Amino acid sequence: MRKAKRKFAEQRAQREAALVERIERSAARAEIGQAGLRVGISDDAALWRPKRGYETILTCDWFLEGTHFLRDKHPADAVGWKCLARAVSDVAAMGGIPHCFLLSLALPGKHTGSWLDQFLRGLGRAARRFDCVLAGGDTTGRRDILISVMVAGEIRTGQAVLRSQARPGDILFVSGRLGEAELGLRLIRKNKGRLNIRDRFLRKHLYPEPRLALGRWLSEKHLASAMMDLSDGLSADLPRLCAASGVGAQVHTARIPAVRVPILRGSSGVNPLALALHGGDDYELLFTVPRKKLKDISRSFHGIPITEIGEITKERVLLLIDKAGQSSPLPNRGWDPFQNPR
Amino acid sequence: MRKAKRKFAEQRAQREAALVERIERSAARAEIGQAGLRVGISDDAALWRPKRGYETILTCDWFLEGTHFLRDKHPADAVGWKCLARAVSDVAAMGGIPHCFLLSLALPGKHTGSWLDQFLRGLGRAARRFDCVLAGGDTTGRRDILISVMVAGEIRTGQAVLRSQARPGDILFVSGRLGEAELGLRLIRKNKGRLNIRDRFLRKHLYPEPRLALGRWLSEKHLASAMMDLSDGLSADLPRLCAASGVGAQVHTARIPAVRVPILRGSSGVNPLALALHGGDDYELLFTVPRKKLKDISRSFHGIPITEIGEITKERVLLLIDKAGQSSPLPNRGWDPFQNPR
Repeated sequence: MRKAKRKFAEQRAQREAALVERIERSAARAEIGQAGLRVGISDDAALWRPKRGYETILTCDWFLEGTHFLRDKHPADAVGWKCLARAVSDVAAMGGIPHCFLLSLALPGKHTGSWLDQFLRGLGRAARRFDCVLAGGDTTGRRDILISVMVAGEIRTGQAVLRSQARPGDILFVSGRLGEAELGLRLIRKNKGRLNIRDRFLRKHLYPEPRLALGRWLSEKHLASAMMDLSDGLSADLPRLCAASGVGAQVHTARIPAVRVPILRGSSGVNPLALALHGGDDYELLFTVPRKKLKDISRSFHGIPITEIGEITKERVLLLIDKAGQSSPLPNRGWDPFQNPR
Repeated sequence: MRKAKRKFAEQRAQREAALVERIERSAARAEIGQAGLRVGISDDAALWRPKRGYETILTCDWFLEGTHFLRDKHPADAVGWKCLARAVSDVAAMGGIPHCFLLSLALPGKHTGSWLDQFLRGLGRAARRFDCVLAGGDTTGRRDILISVMVAGEIRTGQAVLRSQARPGDILFVSGRLGEAELGLRLIRKNKGRLNIRDRFLRKHLYPEPRLALGRWLSEKHLASAMMDLSDGLSADLPRLCAASGVGAQVHTARIPAVRVPILRGSSGVNPLALALHGGDDYELLFTVPRKKLKDISRSFHGIPITEIGEITKERVLLLIDKAGQSSPLPNRGWDPFQNPR
């Protein structure tokens, strides 16, 4: 009996080691030496040689079952893609270049099979797409699927675009169309059968593309005075940028590039402006440009629309201006994680 | 009604902002500019200027309710201390210097009061003790308390001590006494009333001290060929060091500095050797020293015992040698997270 117990313990330890090995092999195929990485997952910690003349960017993001995704609704490979994309988006929001990431993963034993394979496939695709290699992490067993991703990036010293440098008179821009991811989420929630992942809104929700090239261009050309990514919705995120900069803003509702809602079954009653203002998970960039640099901003960047939506004001209030020129306070109804915690 | 709803949403957003502000202020009091930190919690990501001639160390660790601590048994300030100490221990295990950390925290709304205050107090004490400042993080609401800590550290280029460099003939050492933290955990599990946190074993379990100075000394003097920290117990961790180095080891049971179990109520039936072999959470260092450098290793370092417990072998097996010289395979019964996942 004792022998059987011991053997079982050894099998468990081997299972955990095998799991770590699978993650190491399939997720990101980081070659040691690649990206200055000296030691990867196999040691206590990752070792990385930073480039001279560059600063290090560090960021982390939760991606939790029930809070950020639904086990039964979200494909495992989308969970893998999105957990990394979310964190990489913070690097894009500073104008930086992602470099490597650490993965903290907790999952039920029964999810260490095909679910994990799919998850790692999505994670690996994202890692290659964003040129961001897996450098380490921590794995444990858990009833719920819990993910925390930490991304390290870099940026030439002094070039990072912060949230805090918007000045009165600066013009406010957003990339992309806002509310598309939220619409995608609604479609997923309603969906009963297989997902059509070619659908534009589903893709935006499941496989967001952090605006790395745009962020980098804005920082390298010193065009943006302040920048952040839109993760919780314009109405939740704009106040953060304004608070950090000690300014206010006015936004023209007619200019907001809101999601174009197609005539779909069940799409009646959907308000595109409300989706654009309060919908989360778009991972577009919100940034401010000093007036004298406006001439260098075009209406699109590599096919992504760039839209002027308002301006920064000295008075610290957030106003929505409607077509008739009437102003009203911008309500903050963005996504709040303390509502209905799982 | 709609107005009331909107107001409520705004109050929630303010509550979240207030929470982030409390964490920023109390946890680590990182001054911007301190430790090369340019931007802290207030932006999308942290910005940090790495030192020239140094490599960056990155590591992360889960600290989850039910898996790594018990909400009703572990004081909140110990949860704060230990979540950081665990991750810092990985930096110590490479011989490095901790620098800053990111905190991913999920907790129930009712724990944002005094529980959070206590947690932040413990976290702040640890941050000051280890000279490791809070640089950012992510906060969300959740039924369970979930923590992931990412620590960035640094070490002079080429000086890091890896797991993979142990060679046959090297002598195997451990710091401290093994099994003390496990005994502390057992006392906590049995405890019904207030904890006597002056108790040596409880302190070792609740407020572990990563062996930073020892790790740094071993790396700076190039004394250790391989090193790791003991987090899951000697029987689980030694195989990892040996696997990474492609070697085996023999350990003399009589030499293992096992916990000295006092004659306590309820301590009968406790086997000190089993605790030392299989008990987790000691955060002592396990390291190997080439024979020609043995003369530079003393029996203690700043009051911490340093004990020779065996040697590295070419044959890839792990053996326990008893007093009579009889050998038996080292059973791997260290802590396994996939056992009884919460």
